[in-house]
Amino acid sequence: MKRALTSQIPDKIGQQVYLKGWIYRVRDLGKIAFVLLRDRGGVVQLVLEKPDLIKQVRDLHPGSVIYVEGKAVQAPNTELGAEVHVEKLEVVVPIREAPPIKYYEKDLNVHLDTELDYRPLSIRNLKKIFIFKVQAFILEAFREALRKRDFVEFRAPILMPVPSESGADVFEVNFFDKRTIYLAQSPQFYKQIMLGAFERVFTVTPVFRAEKHNTTRHLLEITQMDAEMAFIDSYHDAMDIAEEVIREVMEGIKAKFSADFKRYGFELPLLPKGKFPKLKIKEILRIIEKQTGKSAKRPELDLDPEDERLIGEYVRKKFNSDFLWAINFKKDKNLYTWNDPENPYESLSYDMLFRGLEVLSGTQRIHLHDKLLENIKKAGMNVDNYRHYLMAFRYGMPPEAGWSFGLERLTKQLFGLKNIREATLFPADLKRIAAQRLAD
Amino acid sequence: MKRALTSQIPDKIGQQVYLKGWIYRVRDLGKIAFVLLRDRGGVVQLVLEKPDLIKQVRDLHPGSVIYVEGKAVQAPNTELGAEVHVEKLEVVVPIREAPPIKYYEKDLNVHLDTELDYRPLSIRNLKKIFIFKVQAFILEAFREALRKRDFVEFRAPILMPVPSESGADVFEVNFFDKRTIYLAQSPQFYKQIMLGAFERVFTVTPVFRAEKHNTTRHLLEITQMDAEMAFIDSYHDAMDIAEEVIREVMEGIKAKFSADFKRYGFELPLLPKGKFPKLKIKEILRIIEKQTGKSAKRPELDLDPEDERLIGEYVRKKFNSDFLWAINFKKDKNLYTWNDPENPYESLSYDMLFRGLEVLSGTQRIHLHDKLLENIKKAGMNVDNYRHYLMAFRYGMPPEAGWSFGLERLTKQLFGLKNIREATLFPADLKRIAAQRLAD
Repeated sequence: MKRALTSQIPDKIGQQVYLKGWIYRVRDLGKIAFVLLRDRGGVVQLVLEKPDLIKQVRDLHPGSVIYVEGKAVQAPNTELGAEVHVEKLEVVVPIREAPPIKYYEKDLNVHLDTELDYRPLSIRNLKKIFIFKVQAFILEAFREALRKRDFVEFRAPILMPVPSESGADVFEVNFFDKRTIYLAQSPQFYKQIMLGAFERVFTVTPVFRAEKHNTTRHLLEITQMDAEMAFIDSYHDAMDIAEEVIREVMEGIKAKFSADFKRYGFELPLLPKGKFPKLKIKEILRIIEKQTGKSAKRPELDLDPEDERLIGEYVRKKFNSDFLWAINFKKDKNLYTWNDPENPYESLSYDMLFRGLEVLSGTQRIHLHDKLLENIKKAGMNVDNYRHYLMAFRYGMPPEAGWSFGLERLTKQLFGLKNIREATLFPADLKRIAAQRLAD
Repeated sequence: MKRALTSQIPDKIGQQVYLKGWIYRVRDLGKIAFVLLRDRGGVVQLVLEKPDLIKQVRDLHPGSVIYVEGKAVQAPNTELGAEVHVEKLEVVVPIREAPPIKYYEKDLNVHLDTELDYRPLSIRNLKKIFIFKVQAFILEAFREALRKRDFVEFRAPILMPVPSESGADVFEVNFFDKRTIYLAQSPQFYKQIMLGAFERVFTVTPVFRAEKHNTTRHLLEITQMDAEMAFIDSYHDAMDIAEEVIREVMEGIKAKFSADFKRYGFELPLLPKGKFPKLKIKEILRIIEKQTGKSAKRPELDLDPEDERLIGEYVRKKFNSDFLWAINFKKDKNLYTWNDPENPYESLSYDMLFRGLEVLSGTQRIHLHDKLLENIKKAGMNVDNYRHYLMAFRYGMPPEAGWSFGLERLTKQLFGLKNIREATLFPADLKRIAAQRLAD
């Protein structure tokens, strides 16, 4: 008999069905037993009334793999409005011990460390499954939005002959013959090189930062969603594309997952009717000073996490938007960003803030070979190490800009999670690699 | 004036158009000059007749960035059937030196080392652009085919607490406090863990093999396209999915790119009408012995590259197919593959060969915790290092199987390229990292 999915049961009332799944919960009332069966479609209630069937499941714990045959029946009081009255049951993989965490509860309700210690089980929780299903949708909708706009995907390299941005915070890899190579801190140089072929490119790629700090918004390995575009008139063109893309992603989520957002108690983001509010860093600091008394003076023209939170709240109230642009930073850090020709104390840079956290960062790049060469030399870097990068500009590069989203940060903010680790399947930090705690 | 793309010119005959692009070639005949302008749409011929316009381009080399305004005119002898008679021209980025490789020729025609030494320029060649545009399409069509079948995408971790398969050929990363972590050799363990949440998963991810050899089909960093599925009846289910996926990818390519395959002299693959031929390794070796006299004896039940080539040719002739399945290897290498219960001298394993090269490899996995634990112990591995992996099975895993395609190998075979480096934007091998030659 052909397998049906739990989600198809409401459409098969009165029919014989064959299901394969995991036991999510068992409620054994003696003369009747209720089993929640989970498969990729969700969960459905199984009803067992025959004593020999009840006996089969009595000692089974969540995670047991069973295949069942029975009749689909209306059941108005269940979430699906339907259940299956079981006639045959095969125990394929019996689990005889209780799982160490109760992932089958509505909320996981465990300490973050416990969630990660039991990552293979915590991701079986329906709410967690939902979060990571939406994360997969973000990737899909992101790529789709860019492809529609003629951006071509490419695979940025991870192994680097030299550190990809600066020498700081880079992971070293032991190469043959006692040499050292490096892990990509960003696909920056490669997406710029790729413009020469495709004019508009994007990549979704892991990047690595060896930063020895422990915050709720940083990890050692994250997923960047990067785009870069040539032939711009100004850096506002790149912001426009990013804004259109994130709007399509969020509207896709709304169209597809609204009911589940409600069911799990998550809040869909507020998108403004018109464009996202766009504020200069200078203005943002003045607004914050006026609102809170916090001084507008910073070592650089930059926002700290508290600034991001404050301006996020301000913009939400004033503009009814969970998104805003913060533009014209001046951090003097990277060698490839233009300063504003009319105001060299500001750079042609932009961050997108979502619910008070930076989720995108970008700049207009220096596209003139000689200027770039000058900056590389000024920074004391070995020119020969950057020969491919410089070559792309030496033989013709139009005005261009780009940006990168952080997938885990986007997910964290979308679901209002406290810690980026909750939005990451296999997080790497100082104590854990791929979610697994390092041995002492 | 709104920018038009070169590819739109045939639809704008008689209209004023504004184009932005790179000079691909200049042909200056004195009283008239022809410029091939390249943008993301392709190339179009510009015709310059005014002396001051000709003067502007006379000293410009390929790669120069120009913006032009003019009239779209029919031109039956050009590839597009249309050209632009230029009235205004702005030189935005002039290039005053000839590029070191003639990427604007129809064929690049340089040594592979030269191609890679000048990677930022070689990818500007139209034929190269086409290859990597199709590579991007493979990624898109692959994901789409799997999503349609309820596979959910996830991001597999790259940083590993322990080597992901065996200790051999793994890259070591220097971690904090003089510890060592590792780069993923495969997403294997993580896609298996993810089955517990999604039942069907896929990931496209870089993987790393520190293999000190130099062949036309290996690199240190490649892109794996992995899928894994639970609740199978047999490992043939996983082969069926892979076959459906690759068929949809290839049919998508045929529908979208047939004309360009012809233009650039590439051959579309032969897909059999029915299922791909499926042959046991044992049979394959016997066929080869019969056909060529090459002995069927091997140290393991496995195929070497020559075997792959020979059986590929045989199947193409006999079954009119560029694809075949080679099944039931016995290599005794990995700890998670079932042997055939009816014949322990063969394993439940399968490779897909495409034009005589393995492009996919997969197996049915051991889904029973105790059996897996036994194998890990037998292999002398530290059980505690694999606690997340084992946890996924300890608390319930259905029968499951999976496979992984190599993106670069697929691309190599699709275009009949001699070396995998031609199918890789930024290849890593013993001498190059991210295509750039390592300093001596």
